[in-house]
Amino acid sequence: MKTFIKTQEAVGEYFSQDKERILKEFFDLLRIPSISSEEEYKEDLLHCADWVKREVSSIGFHVDTWEMKRHPTIFATHLHAGPDKPTLLIYNHYDVQPVDPLEEWDSPPFEPVMRDGEIYARGAQDNKGQFFYVLQALKFLIKRDGKLPLNVKWVIEGEEEIGSVGLSLIAQQKKKELKADYVVIVDVGLPAPDTPAVVLGIRGLITFTLEVSGSNRDLHSGSHGGIVYNPNHALIEMLASLRDRHGRVMVPGFYDDVVELSKEERQQLAKQFDKKAYEEAFGTKAEGGEKDYAPLESGRTRPTMEINGISGGYAGQGFKTVIPAKACAKISCRLVLNQNPHKIAESVKNYLMERVPRGVKAVVTIHEGGGEAVRSPADSTIVKAFSQAYSEILGGECSYMLEGGTIGVVTELVKASGGELALVGYGLADDRIHAPNEHFSFRRIELGTMTMARAMEILGGKGDKTHH
Amino acid sequence: MKTFIKTQEAVGEYFSQDKERILKEFFDLLRIPSISSEEEYKEDLLHCADWVKREVSSIGFHVDTWEMKRHPTIFATHLHAGPDKPTLLIYNHYDVQPVDPLEEWDSPPFEPVMRDGEIYARGAQDNKGQFFYVLQALKFLIKRDGKLPLNVKWVIEGEEEIGSVGLSLIAQQKKKELKADYVVIVDVGLPAPDTPAVVLGIRGLITFTLEVSGSNRDLHSGSHGGIVYNPNHALIEMLASLRDRHGRVMVPGFYDDVVELSKEERQQLAKQFDKKAYEEAFGTKAEGGEKDYAPLESGRTRPTMEINGISGGYAGQGFKTVIPAKACAKISCRLVLNQNPHKIAESVKNYLMERVPRGVKAVVTIHEGGGEAVRSPADSTIVKAFSQAYSEILGGECSYMLEGGTIGVVTELVKASGGELALVGYGLADDRIHAPNEHFSFRRIELGTMTMARAMEILGGKGDKTHH
Repeated sequence: MKTFIKTQEAVGEYFSQDKERILKEFFDLLRIPSISSEEEYKEDLLHCADWVKREVSSIGFHVDTWEMKRHPTIFATHLHAGPDKPTLLIYNHYDVQPVDPLEEWDSPPFEPVMRDGEIYARGAQDNKGQFFYVLQALKFLIKRDGKLPLNVKWVIEGEEEIGSVGLSLIAQQKKKELKADYVVIVDVGLPAPDTPAVVLGIRGLITFTLEVSGSNRDLHSGSHGGIVYNPNHALIEMLASLRDRHGRVMVPGFYDDVVELSKEERQQLAKQFDKKAYEEAFGTKAEGGEKDYAPLESGRTRPTMEINGISGGYAGQGFKTVIPAKACAKISCRLVLNQNPHKIAESVKNYLMERVPRGVKAVVTIHEGGGEAVRSPADSTIVKAFSQAYSEILGGECSYMLEGGTIGVVTELVKASGGELALVGYGLADDRIHAPNEHFSFRRIELGTMTMARAMEILGGKGDKTHH
Repeated sequence: MKTFIKTQEAVGEYFSQDKERILKEFFDLLRIPSISSEEEYKEDLLHCADWVKREVSSIGFHVDTWEMKRHPTIFATHLHAGPDKPTLLIYNHYDVQPVDPLEEWDSPPFEPVMRDGEIYARGAQDNKGQFFYVLQALKFLIKRDGKLPLNVKWVIEGEEEIGSVGLSLIAQQKKKELKADYVVIVDVGLPAPDTPAVVLGIRGLITFTLEVSGSNRDLHSGSHGGIVYNPNHALIEMLASLRDRHGRVMVPGFYDDVVELSKEERQQLAKQFDKKAYEEAFGTKAEGGEKDYAPLESGRTRPTMEINGISGGYAGQGFKTVIPAKACAKISCRLVLNQNPHKIAESVKNYLMERVPRGVKAVVTIHEGGGEAVRSPADSTIVKAFSQAYSEILGGECSYMLEGGTIGVVTELVKASGGELALVGYGLADDRIHAPNEHFSFRRIELGTMTMARAMEILGGKGDKTHH
């Protein structure tokens, strides 16, 4: 355990000596409003990409920029370890989610502040915080050793929050560049602080917009109510047809390719979920899933149908007796292993279009991006290396988890690189990613740095337990 | 027909001589953003009330201000005609609807412009335009005759668009002040330009807000989808339960007190509706009403259940994979003769609260205001006087209509005044009231002035056909 002690201690020293500089650097990154979904932030995305390129170049990486339709992907390589050392492909993203509802933030989303060790800002965790400790780990190793223990390829994307369309499309063309022995996606989390875990799988995703339109303008509901079909009614009726009261999706064939879990898998998932703690943390019942499935079963291994947004007419302060010209919904399905996103997307679209009420028009748009669900074997070299690193640093046995979310491009990266996959990270369930008051702790940046540095050593052959 | 010719011609002359001044005055009124539903416009409501009081005082009216919880009602009287002349109570309102969606206005809602004779602004028709020609008619009569042909009481309210709560509550206490032989509500319209018609009845109204809440913050739909019950789903499921696919409201007892029309009434309503013209004007099918009822039947004589607004999660540009903490709907029911608003409101609330899905909380708020449906006999003196005035000015036989909308305070004013009711106006179905690009024509201000002046003459005993 000699190397491990040295690395963990050395990282700790590096952090205590350089805390001010590290924090300043991180805050600089968090101040850039790199919201990929909104056109008005296009320049900020470029600014953020430049920030990343500058930092990564400064520690000796060779940097390429892959132009995408909207925001560039940064491809950085450090291949000085030589051909006898394995190659690790790391994935992060520099874009962030929108910040609505802005009024619910306790401090402005792009003016980071630290309160009680937690750093509050959009992207503090997802994914700037997790990108940032990878950067610190690489900086630390190069500073200490003058080199890295293995060859590193690093993809830092700017379109993750809008479905990774560009990178997914070119991944096959970039097969040569992406070729690697291992792929690590640093964009997930742990079941609890100081509880080591590696994520073996994520759910897939497809997203839709449903737009219903009636009249050519908003109408007065007194004069026109009972004459025209209100698009709000049409929308909610179409949406309500998607699931039954037990949470089961009614679209024919939706569950056809879903593999049911074994009794052992069900029991292991049940153990991972603390219903009481969850309900206290989120202030709601963990009883919204499919009937006859435990919360983590329906939240990790079953596909879902969620209405992420609805809008139509006037729902603000006061009352406006209007029949709106249009109503809109945003819908997403999380997919599990074996489900084909294209097939499911078409089924959902057809199902909705067969249910358009009389007198209104409806359009269902299937969005690009998303992707298939993926899972990795627990006995792969990379999973074992990260398990060891986590166990050394946090103590205790490392467990294996399934993640409910989606990282659209993961399937494509695994296919293009040919490498073994692991998903890791220091996220926690209450980090409020995608919501107001997102936060991440300085302590977790330090732990992440230790874990990444240590896992790279192990994969490069410096593990006491695991050698390549 | 001597008096009629003189009055119509004299008003025409007054308008051609004073057009610039009249238009300037009207634009001054339209520039005041008197949106009663939004707190931030409170000062503008007071400013608008002052404008009205100044104008009404200037033609010799005595003006009282009735303070309400939110915006004052102006009560103006001109009682110089003497005890042998009847008293007419006129109703208008100076408040307007909100302007959302602002981006759909071709010109700013509070910067009136005239294009091809049509004046575009929020309130151009509802109700500032219709108030304004009443003012012009009174001005004209006083200028020409030095007096009015009958006693006039004028209620100009500032809370109509928020349900007339204040005025409805105090109407009974103001019985003495409101006492009148006739009540005319100048806030409705005609079936077509130059087609004389008087409205005998309006529908009642109740409004609700339904709020569904789940977790204590917005959640990521990947991590939490399948674990919690999405408030968007709960909301749309509750809303979808309100009506069946044939537009029939499912709340028990909803139709119990509704009187079915006779065959003759159904035929007369069918004649009044030009389906092709309606569908061309509004760009949608007139097929949204209850099954087995013609459009004007379900739109005038049947109660409705309309979702006026829905909101939950992110429905903007791009996509946000969120499970919102809250979702909200605004719901209204138009009511018909004999339906009790309180009874219906309670039934709807109970029905919704019995259908709250597991794991979410719901609150149904019944809003104050609204009111019962009212109808007036076609052979009353006031209806006959306005019929005559319309026929003289527009030509042709005057018809009798039912209005689908609601003027919350009408029932209370009729009860408190003890007067006979008529509802009149120069609104047209495509004036876009309550919607972007509301408009009203200068020509209709002139016709409205003629009609009001002439009807007051007739009611005051100067009619060639109708005498009091």
